[in-house]
Amino acid sequence: MNSKASNNISEQKFQFSPIGIIQSPYQEKFAIPRQPGLVSAAKGQILLQNEANNSELLRGIEQFSHLWLIFVFHGTLAQGWKPLVRPPRLGGNEKMGVLATRSTFRPNPIGISVVTLDSVETYLEAKKQQAILHISGLDLLNGTPILDIKPYIPYSDSLADAQAGFAQQAPQASLVVKFSTIAMKQLNELQQHYFDLKLLINQVLAQDPRPAYKQGKVDNKIYGMALYDLNIQWQMYSLEQIEVLKISQHNVHQ
Amino acid sequence: MNSKASNNISEQKFQFSPIGIIQSPYQEKFAIPRQPGLVSAAKGQILLQNEANNSELLRGIEQFSHLWLIFVFHGTLAQGWKPLVRPPRLGGNEKMGVLATRSTFRPNPIGISVVTLDSVETYLEAKKQQAILHISGLDLLNGTPILDIKPYIPYSDSLADAQAGFAQQAPQASLVVKFSTIAMKQLNELQQHYFDLKLLINQVLAQDPRPAYKQGKVDNKIYGMALYDLNIQWQMYSLEQIEVLKISQHNVHQ
Repeated sequence: MNSKASNNISEQKFQFSPIGIIQSPYQEKFAIPRQPGLVSAAKGQILLQNEANNSELLRGIEQFSHLWLIFVFHGTLAQGWKPLVRPPRLGGNEKMGVLATRSTFRPNPIGISVVTLDSVETYLEAKKQQAILHISGLDLLNGTPILDIKPYIPYSDSLADAQAGFAQQAPQASLVVKFSTIAMKQLNELQQHYFDLKLLINQVLAQDPRPAYKQGKVDNKIYGMALYDLNIQWQMYSLEQIEVLKISQHNVHQ
Repeated sequence: MNSKASNNISEQKFQFSPIGIIQSPYQEKFAIPRQPGLVSAAKGQILLQNEANNSELLRGIEQFSHLWLIFVFHGTLAQGWKPLVRPPRLGGNEKMGVLATRSTFRPNPIGISVVTLDSVETYLEAKKQQAILHISGLDLLNGTPILDIKPYIPYSDSLADAQAGFAQQAPQASLVVKFSTIAMKQLNELQQHYFDLKLLINQVLAQDPRPAYKQGKVDNKIYGMALYDLNIQWQMYSLEQIEVLKISQHNVHQ
């Protein structure tokens, strides 16, 4: 939580330690929805850490229905940044300035994301208190480092009339998701251990998580995606339908 | 723009250099509105710097009416942080967890703020190109280091129905601001050099910038506030009225 600044503006550097860490079903960038809120069944936790692991810091936060998370795009950090990117919203064909997008490949790889606050908890673990926020609708990779948490304040944050050019309309989530007989059997066995698993898989796949250049095109490839410690295999059958073929459990963390 | 992360989560540190710097009329924390947008006449600029000073990064940003700025609370940085703070909204009497507020005294002193994007410009200065964003409605101290700039996307960012407990209602800005004869004369001389100066002073003072514990109480103190290189002296006459007494020019930067 230390911060340093030099006097010379162009040489200033600021150093931050995470105040918390995200536990999320999403184990890889692939299939993470492109904005928060699109997959309401995605539930996760923020475990506060270091000096911020103190329930005092959260006093009153239960008055707010939504929170801003300020976080580091740790999954793509090592790839560096680019001045121009190709937003999926433009089919991946057109280049835009990185600051005109929400791309992860930014000069400073910082993200902001609104999530729903479900509940606040403090539990004991190895005789140490752990402060935790239960959240949903998140679009963050498991293990994401959280730099800050702020209440969402509608009178200053909600600008329904803002103009957003190519990003004005919400992405359409219109695909029908079906489960094969075997996937349905596996799902029934797993449902008791994974909260709302069917709904989560449904909502994630309804977005069509394939790369932008494949949107609107059928392809026969069998895709795999990691949710929790599950590998979910699926295939696109038509422009309207995705089928889940198989769900297998494996340890993605090795 | 470098970032480092260690493998041990609780020891991770992330280092960021500002991608830009704010030029703003606000020279001191006193009198800055408590949220962006409250003082629409507050106009400023973001000068991009270092590797981010490249107009390519801004390509397409003019499609957006509003931007998120992610910045460092550099004015209060040296004071450190506090687990509990007393929000002005609660009259400064009640303590809340710092993460349940937008207080500057946070574990990581990072702020987020929505501003209106007026225009994008690139100019030549000493044979070097300078990329610049003209913004308004800002609530940031002059010289604020900007870590990131993101487009405001209403379908994901605008949640008009979010519940915000003690911060649900926007602050009332109902004070009438009058100018003394001498202040009016000074204003007329200065107006040509300072864009919409009267409106700016009006909007700033209508918020009653006095400390939270004085809200709703008349006091006879003569207050001074710094806007640009001006010192503006004013006094509260009644619960409904503030009078601007005198406007003097001085170099606040020495």
